[in-house]
Amino acid sequence: MTGFVSLVGAGPGDPDLLTRRALDRLARADLVLYDALGPTDVGELAPQARRFFVGKRAGRHAIDQDGINQLLIRAARRGQRVVRLKGGDPFVLGRGGEEALAMVDAGIPFEIVPGVSSAIAGPALAGIPVTHRGVAAGFAVISGHARAVWEPVLAALPPASITIVVLMGLSQRALIGSFLIERGWAPSTPAAVVLGASTPEARTWTGVLAELAGGAGLVEQGELPGLLVIGPVVELAATLAPALAPAAVASSI
Amino acid sequence: MTGFVSLVGAGPGDPDLLTRRALDRLARADLVLYDALGPTDVGELAPQARRFFVGKRAGRHAIDQDGINQLLIRAARRGQRVVRLKGGDPFVLGRGGEEALAMVDAGIPFEIVPGVSSAIAGPALAGIPVTHRGVAAGFAVISGHARAVWEPVLAALPPASITIVVLMGLSQRALIGSFLIERGWAPSTPAAVVLGASTPEARTWTGVLAELAGGAGLVEQGELPGLLVIGPVVELAATLAPALAPAAVASSI
Repeated sequence: MTGFVSLVGAGPGDPDLLTRRALDRLARADLVLYDALGPTDVGELAPQARRFFVGKRAGRHAIDQDGINQLLIRAARRGQRVVRLKGGDPFVLGRGGEEALAMVDAGIPFEIVPGVSSAIAGPALAGIPVTHRGVAAGFAVISGHARAVWEPVLAALPPASITIVVLMGLSQRALIGSFLIERGWAPSTPAAVVLGASTPEARTWTGVLAELAGGAGLVEQGELPGLLVIGPVVELAATLAPALAPAAVASSI
Repeated sequence: MTGFVSLVGAGPGDPDLLTRRALDRLARADLVLYDALGPTDVGELAPQARRFFVGKRAGRHAIDQDGINQLLIRAARRGQRVVRLKGGDPFVLGRGGEEALAMVDAGIPFEIVPGVSSAIAGPALAGIPVTHRGVAAGFAVISGHARAVWEPVLAALPPASITIVVLMGLSQRALIGSFLIERGWAPSTPAAVVLGASTPEARTWTGVLAELAGGAGLVEQGELPGLLVIGPVVELAATLAPALAPAAVASSI
């Protein structure tokens, strides 16, 4: 008897941005291993399942990646339906590929359930389209976790060529801003910090690259997940953000 | 009396990849303007709405962008709940930003409902994570529609630095492949063509950059939407694709 593992994207945090397939898998799950997911209430979505938080708390992992893989494999071998619920999309800087390879190695049947990526939805809900005709015909999503990772990529991008979205880069934002300016990006290039996108605590700072370090004082206020957006598309937020209706208003119409 | 416009991402085609919010907006809509959406049946999801196809048929738009904007505005001014349903995510190369600005200009209340982007889910469902630890710490999504758009971006990216996903670039794939090789990308760089992702007709070709032109003979077989993926992450498909369970199997467990 072998169970099944679903590697599921939970989207940016608002439970209404879960997909129909994600909701189905959660409703039928025996076990759910989940990360920090903002206001998404796993207990409500997966009432029949045992549920374990395996994400980061105060910057530290509750359990390491190998431990997570072993929990998935052991539960599936006991015949359980297992959901590994990850913020955003499982294959966007979320180590979903490693979990998928671990399932292959262990011979566990599994699937990928793509989710709404925070890298796109985060800017969108702040009024920033990552692409816009005549402004940006593409975008890059990179990890800002460590300089050794972002530096070679950002060193290569010509100034203002495509929109840059940096995930996990809040703490490196001053370094990233000054690095791009050294590389020829205009200090006046529009830039934004988006925190807690799609949640009731969502906050956005918009400004320019030269102020990316200091301007985002809001970052210090909490532990919300956040991202950086750099490029001329950020200017659209001045027009779009004040006009966007909150989801709660739209739901009541 | 003013209505409301929801600019909604429909995801890559499989209706189970619609979000809960998208399903809610469709269920309550008076009018739906939709593009080509693969197997998604708008009539089933929005039974109370008048429904108009405004996408491309045989390569030609049923109606131009200004005409779509005017339809949205006129219906909202009559007090209707209007859904503009777009493939993938509305802000990823989908002209959603232009529609949003048109709503601001006309003073129509509106919202953005982010969707699962084909740029990420298409590769994922073919067994290709757009990022993977130690292989690619980021990815770029660009339009392959016209050389004037993709050339300046691709000219700048260092070989194999981040994964490249090209949307709307099937017809330019030979040009794109040879351009990257001229710029120093190894002819052996893994590359894929993903067609009809998330639909029952889904097909994937994987090979190398030097064969991107000829190898994808499957492209000629139909009018499925498709994308290109270029970079070392494509090699993971050899391991992951054969192991991935189809959604229908997963749903029955």
